[in-house]
Amino acid sequence: MRPRILFCAGDIKFVHNEVQELFDGLAEVITLDSFTRADFLAEFKPGGKYAGTVGIYRRNVSAARIGVFDKELIDAIAVSVKWIAQNGAGYDEIDVEECKLKGIYVSNTPRVVDDATATAALYLIVSCLRHFSYAERSLRSLQWKVPISAGATHDVTNRTLGILGLGGIGLRLAHLAHAFPMHVVYHSRTRKPEVPEWCRYVSSLPELCAEVDVLSVHVPLMAETIGLVGENEIRAMKRGSIVVNTSRGKVVDEEALIRALEDGHLSSVGLDVYPSEPRVNPRLLEFPQNVLLPHIGGETYETECIREVRALSNLRDYLRHGMGGDLVPELRDKTQVML
Amino acid sequence: MRPRILFCAGDIKFVHNEVQELFDGLAEVITLDSFTRADFLAEFKPGGKYAGTVGIYRRNVSAARIGVFDKELIDAIAVSVKWIAQNGAGYDEIDVEECKLKGIYVSNTPRVVDDATATAALYLIVSCLRHFSYAERSLRSLQWKVPISAGATHDVTNRTLGILGLGGIGLRLAHLAHAFPMHVVYHSRTRKPEVPEWCRYVSSLPELCAEVDVLSVHVPLMAETIGLVGENEIRAMKRGSIVVNTSRGKVVDEEALIRALEDGHLSSVGLDVYPSEPRVNPRLLEFPQNVLLPHIGGETYETECIREVRALSNLRDYLRHGMGGDLVPELRDKTQVML
Repeated sequence: MRPRILFCAGDIKFVHNEVQELFDGLAEVITLDSFTRADFLAEFKPGGKYAGTVGIYRRNVSAARIGVFDKELIDAIAVSVKWIAQNGAGYDEIDVEECKLKGIYVSNTPRVVDDATATAALYLIVSCLRHFSYAERSLRSLQWKVPISAGATHDVTNRTLGILGLGGIGLRLAHLAHAFPMHVVYHSRTRKPEVPEWCRYVSSLPELCAEVDVLSVHVPLMAETIGLVGENEIRAMKRGSIVVNTSRGKVVDEEALIRALEDGHLSSVGLDVYPSEPRVNPRLLEFPQNVLLPHIGGETYETECIREVRALSNLRDYLRHGMGGDLVPELRDKTQVML
Repeated sequence: MRPRILFCAGDIKFVHNEVQELFDGLAEVITLDSFTRADFLAEFKPGGKYAGTVGIYRRNVSAARIGVFDKELIDAIAVSVKWIAQNGAGYDEIDVEECKLKGIYVSNTPRVVDDATATAALYLIVSCLRHFSYAERSLRSLQWKVPISAGATHDVTNRTLGILGLGGIGLRLAHLAHAFPMHVVYHSRTRKPEVPEWCRYVSSLPELCAEVDVLSVHVPLMAETIGLVGENEIRAMKRGSIVVNTSRGKVVDEEALIRALEDGHLSSVGLDVYPSEPRVNPRLLEFPQNVLLPHIGGETYETECIREVRALSNLRDYLRHGMGGDLVPELRDKTQVML
């Protein structure tokens, strides 16, 4: 039997119609047709429709059908799967530690979404400072400017932007913000050596928070980043400042965020991500000056094309050469020994 | 009787409480308390509450009470008024030709709103390309991403931006767009000598339209710019492109714009201005991907402060020295002869 690769992408159509050809002679391409987790797990057994699946192309939308790739799921697919090619920079929906134990490689598509996500963060910053989203809803409800107040809005230029996590997305945002210019400061686990001089390192998160008008979050979700921006960090910010998050919802303590909105300590928040997507805490909607996007920061036609090709190429390279690109960092060091 | 200056600013409070002091010993400061045009005109007669008014500080919001400064109004106030200090870059609500005939100076506040307005234009460009405004409304109506389609959205980076009118606002937008970078091309009545090499001149408007993904309008409203972007110009654009306008509504032919939205020639429009503000053509609201702001492009707390001081300083300089700054171009050449 030829090896199979399984497309776990929910209902999403592929941008490239030639996907099948990409695997010609290498593997049989099958697509997810399970609508429950139980069905999905059962069909990995011998004779099942996913039996013999060596590689999985995965998008987060598949979680709506079969749930995230947790220990239970990984254990079930480990019977044949050797590579999970995640389409996306974030892979917090895959239990990488369990993959490591079972000898499954995991790749992601880093950097591809840097530009699109940083642009989304810039949009949230501009809209929060200027109350543009609020004003648009005012107009569409036929009220013209009411109840917008120009006196409560601020220029982007000359505000201070704090970037938490200066990876690819954070650094890209720094450049876009510098064009105004905003004053750009950042905090990261380590000071970055090759950063423009106008992008100033601040050695602790509370100090960063105290300096900024806008805090923009760009760290991945990991055990040590859950709730990283909490009550203390938010209260260290100036009254009337803004929190923007385009990374993962759980990095910010949502209850602390809402308390700070309620007592006016924060003037608004700009969010593309939430702790329990697609659920959005309805209390966030109560603040008309908040700007709330449905996790589309990395999504554009151009980015989709590049991400898809990148994820599929990682998988194909594995099939061809026994090793693909973009292995996630947790698997890079010891994989050759373990797997 | 001391000269009077009249604040025509609707209900808007002054940012600077010390405004009265600015005119100490120079003039008595009175504020608009007319709610109809008839009352306003009548009170300029001898013994009226505005009698003896030498200078007027004007904001466009006053039009909601007393109408625009047309021939009728200018003729009535010309009995005593010598200077109209407009708060704003645009002064199309003042009949400057009539002012010239009556010997009234008109000043505006150019360049002050360049940054805020260019930022608004950038916001409209980003939101139109990415469908962010559409996505926000989707989330707030509890639909998460539905009916947004990532495949219909585009990166800002690498799109081509056409700037019509490379004055202060257009040039500022060029710099902000270049940060991505967008490809920036422009058309103006004259080729600008001191423009960065990446900002390329196109010698005709139809040629500019044919090149761009987004056309952003930055020309003032004058007789020769009414309907400047019309059917022919819009049809010269590529299918699926975007028109953004933060200058004045009448510069774009609204009917041609709506026709192009209806047949899909334009994918969306991003507007801050409309031909008959505050009325917004309800057909514009029918396209959920349109981004529609209520003419707040130049409005921020910081800009309001600077504009107010600038407009009032122009008026004070006239009272002190017989001449103030920021005379509108139409009055600059011949004023010394005429007035």
